[in-house]
Amino acid sequence: MKLAILGYGTVGRGVEEIVANLSDLEVSHIFVREGKLADDPRATYSIDDILADSEVGIVAECLGGLEPARTYILAALEAGRHVVTSNKAVVAAYFDEFVAAANQSGAGFFVEACVGGGVPWIASLHRVSRIDGVTSFSGIMNGTTNYIVDAMERDGADFAEVLAQAQELGYAERDPSADIDGDDVRNKTIISTTLAFSVPCEKNLPTAGIRNLTKADLDLLASRGYSLRLLGRGVRKDGRYAAAVGPVALPTSALEAHVPSNFNLFTLEGHSIGELRFYGQGAGSLPTGNAVVQDMLDAVAGERPAYCFDTELVYDPSLLISDHLLRTSAALSGYELWAEGVYHLPQMDPVAARAALDEALAADPAAFLVALP
Amino acid sequence: MKLAILGYGTVGRGVEEIVANLSDLEVSHIFVREGKLADDPRATYSIDDILADSEVGIVAECLGGLEPARTYILAALEAGRHVVTSNKAVVAAYFDEFVAAANQSGAGFFVEACVGGGVPWIASLHRVSRIDGVTSFSGIMNGTTNYIVDAMERDGADFAEVLAQAQELGYAERDPSADIDGDDVRNKTIISTTLAFSVPCEKNLPTAGIRNLTKADLDLLASRGYSLRLLGRGVRKDGRYAAAVGPVALPTSALEAHVPSNFNLFTLEGHSIGELRFYGQGAGSLPTGNAVVQDMLDAVAGERPAYCFDTELVYDPSLLISDHLLRTSAALSGYELWAEGVYHLPQMDPVAARAALDEALAADPAAFLVALP
Repeated sequence: MKLAILGYGTVGRGVEEIVANLSDLEVSHIFVREGKLADDPRATYSIDDILADSEVGIVAECLGGLEPARTYILAALEAGRHVVTSNKAVVAAYFDEFVAAANQSGAGFFVEACVGGGVPWIASLHRVSRIDGVTSFSGIMNGTTNYIVDAMERDGADFAEVLAQAQELGYAERDPSADIDGDDVRNKTIISTTLAFSVPCEKNLPTAGIRNLTKADLDLLASRGYSLRLLGRGVRKDGRYAAAVGPVALPTSALEAHVPSNFNLFTLEGHSIGELRFYGQGAGSLPTGNAVVQDMLDAVAGERPAYCFDTELVYDPSLLISDHLLRTSAALSGYELWAEGVYHLPQMDPVAARAALDEALAADPAAFLVALP
Repeated sequence: MKLAILGYGTVGRGVEEIVANLSDLEVSHIFVREGKLADDPRATYSIDDILADSEVGIVAECLGGLEPARTYILAALEAGRHVVTSNKAVVAAYFDEFVAAANQSGAGFFVEACVGGGVPWIASLHRVSRIDGVTSFSGIMNGTTNYIVDAMERDGADFAEVLAQAQELGYAERDPSADIDGDDVRNKTIISTTLAFSVPCEKNLPTAGIRNLTKADLDLLASRGYSLRLLGRGVRKDGRYAAAVGPVALPTSALEAHVPSNFNLFTLEGHSIGELRFYGQGAGSLPTGNAVVQDMLDAVAGERPAYCFDTELVYDPSLLISDHLLRTSAALSGYELWAEGVYHLPQMDPVAARAALDEALAADPAAFLVALP
């Protein structure tokens, strides 16, 4: 089957490299900015040219960002082409719109590469759901921040130093905000929630990041038997669901505490399956390219993901109530100290905890929040 | 689709419980020993009656053991019925014969539940293989022995005590030989090797167990920074492959060292995917039943696993050469001591290491062998 790759960055190149060895797939078009790849006969600067070629069966959207990705995905689906995407931001924002367009035309819409790179997380949510559903999930969903936290915990390095290292290794963007503020994990959590619980997920999920994490925070947690990880989490119970993103203090015996470097670890629980975990490279050219190509092979085999977003669940953050710690030099009234400069916020849902963090940040821009297990 | 369950033990009951909630599947026959389930109209004592019912599309073989499982599986496949099995012993012994019969009749032959219970290990080997293949794998594949080793390491309990506990909890059989001598892991390793490398796997894989493991062995390893796990392993390289089963000393930072209780952890490596790991309940009524039912849903969806066993790889145990430790009161000549009563066997393949163990066992029935990483 012929395919068009939109975008020739990290993921697009990985897809091209992997497809080169497969007989079922052929890259006929590579969509790039005008003037790029001038010597490659497959280069094209127009989505219309791609969709005008009736032999193109699959469009792989590896552009990233919201526009023009959204417009191109919709155009391809409306033209009856299968779309495979690695773009978590656009899927988190417009998942239901894309699925509606795919259902309208009969095309397939594939999103394995959006979450967890090469880790078969999306496929596993699908599989578990067809028997008795997922009751909760959580995950180390961002390799950049895990690299930072792991290096800080393991080597005692400080945040700025490790971030610079990660940028040098290509694990972190020049502007690392989407990673360290938790926005990337929020997008992945929205997609995971949608698939795990078959609901159109609340977009405004409570989100905290690790921008203000210090070595002293980790030392304090370690002295009480905790390791820290940035997690996306979701839970369903009694007709309700909740999801949230933020640093969580985990017992040092937890498997998450032993996930090194830029690896990801996803966990789901279901009634009959119990606890299942998936570990691997959550990003990178070849692992993410591998996930894109897996989706393409499913499309070639005639498989088409069936999405159901109509489960009537009420969004209720109180399902994720837990104790929190808030480290701040601001004076907070009504809370006990857990340690010097660290307040203990008992039994608070993640929305309320995020509001408490915002209040502290107004007086102390270095304040840091972490959920206790 | 109507289905027959052969065997009404742990797995068969789990399958029945899960299927009861699914509209696509209906249990029409349960094959049991004459006189059992007398009040259940679905009970039958004859495989011929099942195959004579043209509405039965799937036969789930949950009997265990070699016979009559082999005969029934072949009969069902020859009659064009999809067969789903959780029986690792019979698949390890007759995999190619079953696949030939399935290819002959066009039926599907499904083995997800044979390895790793609810962990989607087999499905993942299939998926990775369709892109660029698996280069190596390893796994904690037996929950009983992991439960024993974990309890011994964690609580300082001794072998006999923990084994009795595991038997009480239903994690270990009354005759635990297949688990503690590594035979169960060998069957799973044979199946994994077959699927990972697309070869008919050598059946006589070098196998060592944990029957002779003592608290002192674990203390010694711990004092040198090691944790012990019973692993099945396989590797492919330059037209050759090897596989082996036995205890391995792992750095305490390894993820395997943090797998608790009766959980399993499977790892594979591939060129583009990198390292992927899968963790979950490797046994038990509902997790294994879940895997059986996943296979059934694939069969209902018209999917049929494509097996290829014709890769020309030469079996070469030297691919798994490593240092070993042999603890024995027998006097071994030619080896240095690693610690009191513990010999260091440098750079030895698993077949040679097993031979050294056998030699020691002849003089000292308590001898114990462990591979170094």
